[in-house]
Amino acid sequence: MDIAFVGLGNMGGPMALNLIKAGHPLRVFDLVPAAIEAARTAGAKVADSPKAAVAGVEIIVSMLPASRHVESLYLGAEGLLASIAPGALVIDCSTIAPASSRKVAEAAQARGLRFIDAPVSGGTAGASAGTLTFIVGGSVEDLESARPILSAMGKNILHAGACGAGQVAKIANNMLLAIHMAGTAEALALGVANGLDPKVLSDIMVKSSGRNWSLEVYNPWPGVQENSAASRGYAGGFGSALMLKDLGLAAEASIASGSAIPLGELARNLYALHSAGSGQLDFSSILNLYRKA
Amino acid sequence: MDIAFVGLGNMGGPMALNLIKAGHPLRVFDLVPAAIEAARTAGAKVADSPKAAVAGVEIIVSMLPASRHVESLYLGAEGLLASIAPGALVIDCSTIAPASSRKVAEAAQARGLRFIDAPVSGGTAGASAGTLTFIVGGSVEDLESARPILSAMGKNILHAGACGAGQVAKIANNMLLAIHMAGTAEALALGVANGLDPKVLSDIMVKSSGRNWSLEVYNPWPGVQENSAASRGYAGGFGSALMLKDLGLAAEASIASGSAIPLGELARNLYALHSAGSGQLDFSSILNLYRKA
Amino acid sequence: MDIAFVGLGNMGGPMALNLIKAGHPLRVFDLVPAAIEAARTAGAKVADSPKAAVAGVEIIVSMLPASRHVESLYLGAEGLLASIAPGALVIDCSTIAPASSRKVAEAAQARGLRFIDAPVSGGTAGASAGTLTFIVGGSVEDLESARPILSAMGKNILHAGACGAGQVAKIANNMLLAIHMAGTAEALALGVANGLDPKVLSDIMVKSSGRNWSLEVYNPWPGVQENSAASRGYAGGFGSALMLKDLGLAAEASIASGSAIPLGELARNLYALHSAGSGQLDFSSILNLYRKA
Amino acid sequence: MDIAFVGLGNMGGPMALNLIKAGHPLRVFDLVPAAIEAARTAGAKVADSPKAAVAGVEIIVSMLPASRHVESLYLGAEGLLASIAPGALVIDCSTIAPASSRKVAEAAQARGLRFIDAPVSGGTAGASAGTLTFIVGGSVEDLESARPILSAMGKNILHAGACGAGQVAKIANNMLLAIHMAGTAEALALGVANGLDPKVLSDIMVKSSGRNWSLEVYNPWPGVQENSAASRGYAGGFGSALMLKDLGLAAEASIASGSAIPLGELARNLYALHSAGSGQLDFSSILNLYRKA
Repeated sequence: MDIAFVGLGNMGGPMALNLIKAGHPLRVFDLVPAAIEAARTAGAKVADSPKAAVAGVEIIVSMLPASRHVESLYLGAEGLLASIAPGALVIDCSTIAPASSRKVAEAAQARGLRFIDAPVSGGTAGASAGTLTFIVGGSVEDLESARPILSAMGKNILHAGACGAGQVAKIANNMLLAIHMAGTAEALALGVANGLDPKVLSDIMVKSSGRNWSLEVYNPWPGVQENSAASRGYAGGFGSALMLKDLGLAAEASIASGSAIPLGELARNLYALHSAGSGQLDFSSILNLYRKA
Repeated sequence: MDIAFVGLGNMGGPMALNLIKAGHPLRVFDLVPAAIEAARTAGAKVADSPKAAVAGVEIIVSMLPASRHVESLYLGAEGLLASIAPGALVIDCSTIAPASSRKVAEAAQARGLRFIDAPVSGGTAGASAGTLTFIVGGSVEDLESARPILSAMGKNILHAGACGAGQVAKIANNMLLAIHMAGTAEALALGVANGLDPKVLSDIMVKSSGRNWSLEVYNPWPGVQENSAASRGYAGGFGSALMLKDLGLAAEASIASGSAIPLGELARNLYALHSAGSGQLDFSSILNLYRKA
Repeated sequence: MDIAFVGLGNMGGPMALNLIKAGHPLRVFDLVPAAIEAARTAGAKVADSPKAAVAGVEIIVSMLPASRHVESLYLGAEGLLASIAPGALVIDCSTIAPASSRKVAEAAQARGLRFIDAPVSGGTAGASAGTLTFIVGGSVEDLESARPILSAMGKNILHAGACGAGQVAKIANNMLLAIHMAGTAEALALGVANGLDPKVLSDIMVKSSGRNWSLEVYNPWPGVQENSAASRGYAGGFGSALMLKDLGLAAEASIASGSAIPLGELARNLYALHSAGSGQLDFSSILNLYRKA
Repeated sequence: MDIAFVGLGNMGGPMALNLIKAGHPLRVFDLVPAAIEAARTAGAKVADSPKAAVAGVEIIVSMLPASRHVESLYLGAEGLLASIAPGALVIDCSTIAPASSRKVAEAAQARGLRFIDAPVSGGTAGASAGTLTFIVGGSVEDLESARPILSAMGKNILHAGACGAGQVAKIANNMLLAIHMAGTAEALALGVANGLDPKVLSDIMVKSSGRNWSLEVYNPWPGVQENSAASRGYAGGFGSALMLKDLGLAAEASIASGSAIPLGELARNLYALHSAGSGQLDFSSILNLYRKA
């Protein structure tokens, strides 16, 4: 049985290829001809429209840039939900607002469809290598139905709760990541400005209570870790502009729930200041904001 | 040969006891009679004054609350440096401003004395158990001279650089700790306000890029970790008011070096807001600031 | 010719009464019976539905709480725009997201209608007294058509630019207000904690470069100004929860435009911390956040 | 009777000239030969040392860059206080930490001297024009003794309270100024990024509750006000690096009193980010930080 896949961008493209490699017959749709050709070459059937892609399938995977694309794809009089067979499972891997995700989930369920949100972490490298982490919102049963599909694209599948919970957990995690990445840059820059060697200080903090993922595997100071983005001019990796986008989702979620996230929103603004001109650089390049100071 | 020990407070008291247990003859001074009695009972000689404590000894250990106490003890016409034998080694374990530490170090060296700053982490529990971490500023030779003494009080000895570097590294580390502790509290509160379970979200983030020491070993949400300060009402541990003090040192260091530490100073202000009324609670109780919101 | 008025809440209610007093025949709609009765008593015709209210009129005024209410009222297959006569002028006085306002404006213009956004400042007191300030987005011609109506409800009419510009200017102004109100509270609390009298310090700053609207006419310290909200227990006035809502609109606007608003978002978070439990108090009560510290 | 004046820098130099113009015989000291020559040319007697300057005089005025200079000038075994005649009045116009100022005041009083702190606002232009504002800490009697002297250098004399209160008020005022200047820049940049004209938005906010000194007389957007620093490339005026220094004093005062100043410290960090490379530009150039974003 075919799987429909909508959205063959930097992330969706390699994810689709991994599904094909794992033997899943794929019917794909995208707006960009080059993206379609890569999938066709790899063995996918190409649909003329999203509707044609989903007609009669039992599994639909989507990977789109933002809430408005996902809402626009699935909802409304012309939305895709109306064309999907009852009982089919929609797996949305986009990182979007939890409220949008829940809206689509409810509309899907109202039509007898099943829905999980399964945003990913791991970046384009993880998408290519098939080592993504999926953070899933939805029922246990639907997650189990999706497991074979997700396993072909990633190696960790974490269950966060009901529909929308995958988005919330992804957003909370990335906010915390931004906070400790910028915090690590700040602590290193403070230490260096006061006479310390960045590698020595990194070694001390990673053995102490300052320890965090950024220090351990993603040190933002050039030369401290051999294979870090910092040591290759911040090329590749997870772009600053993408981190800014995720922090915008965190701000929106906090507005919706009336939560206070002072550090998260300050991190968002530091990324906004930094992304002007450096949005394509890896997010650890936030260090440059501090080194200028 | 006697070791002089000045400052038998919550930290210095148990540190001195561990030196005695390790067989070091101790000559102690403190202003508080009860603190002195505990040391005397354990076998220390009690000096009438700091001067009497240091007379003729080769090693002096001090553990005092703040820069002004350390400067006042050692410097000036009446300062202790004038009473210490040339060649002796001063080990100051206080957490103070790097500038103060360097001032005392320079004055000591000008009189032919040796000096290292060796601020600790590990709290009163680590002081009692003899498992402190020392972050040391000073020459390699002086650190090696101090090693047998420090080893009797702690299990990790990290060398940060020249005199004052121990203070800088300690301050940078604790600033980063405050940032990821408050950030972790913020991420958990955001997740919970948006429907997630704090334990499930903690498990997801600790396996993801949000991972940090606070999540791993010091989760601020009550009940998520069995033995955390959070799970015992934030009693004991490292007090919020002490974290506020260390963040004040970070602010002062950044003013001195012209560094920007926006997240660090915001964390300082969150601890200032929180410490009013909750200063004695463990620093992970910063979660309460977010749960009220 | 009747004017239609939709939304008779705390603000819309008294605004409608002022239109009636000025001799404008009004056809009103609201979901709350008590609100309708007050308008009926004052002489308004009561419509059974929004559609009935707007049928055949040339001027429609709406005053609703949030973007979703305005979009839901006007847009979609069942939206009100379809029932309004071509050439009629829609005056939306709600404070909502500029993007929402522009969306409604474009949909209105696509149907041959005219539209201005005219968010207000001045609070419920200004609404009752007819002394509101309107900040208008739309064409000069449409603003001139609206002027007699707006003049019956307020005394200042400021033109910000094209459709949506009224919302942007209102949001920017209120963000700046929140920043200098919280900043004034912070400066006064810092001064008092360092021994100054709040009235003396206020007098000095109002004569110096710290001067701002909060200091001049809305001092947040109780007792400094006789008739301030602070001097009557922060009752009445512009609620902290409403300021929090406006700051959320500022955050959303900054996300949309990629702007950095670090002080604005920090102010938003201070209001989020403060509003938990104090949302009904006047927004100058943010001082309490600082006095606890 | 001679007046002693110590510190003939960018501010002190023109202040001394105004005293001479007003007919006060002056005995001056500075470390910089060029500064001394300007005063000598204007008619001042030049002393070989601070001690020689103050010998036998009844009024001493000092204007120095930072706390350490003032403490070093007056205190200690070699300090100037020992050389001043009992009953003489020391007027320190430096902007320094309140704690330093109080320390000098107490030492002065212990020797039978009188002391007021009288930090100024108005910049080098105000110093030259004799239009400075003095914010005074000290007794009413001492302020009255100083009034004829201060009046020769400025036009406003504001009494903040006891010794040190002048410093506190100056620091609180300048913190609030930094907050509303950066806030104004932020609000204008947000508006412009969302399509508004900076002059139109400025006009709206200055008539509304966003009004503040920065908007009224010191608009940071180039071209909005004809004679603003912004309209002449941010040349001259009050430098960003000087504002950063004053915000450092605010941070230190808040650390000392346990106050929370989240907006003030964020403003400090924005100025730290901005001052790297732009420290000589007028402080309203903080706008550039936002325009890059």
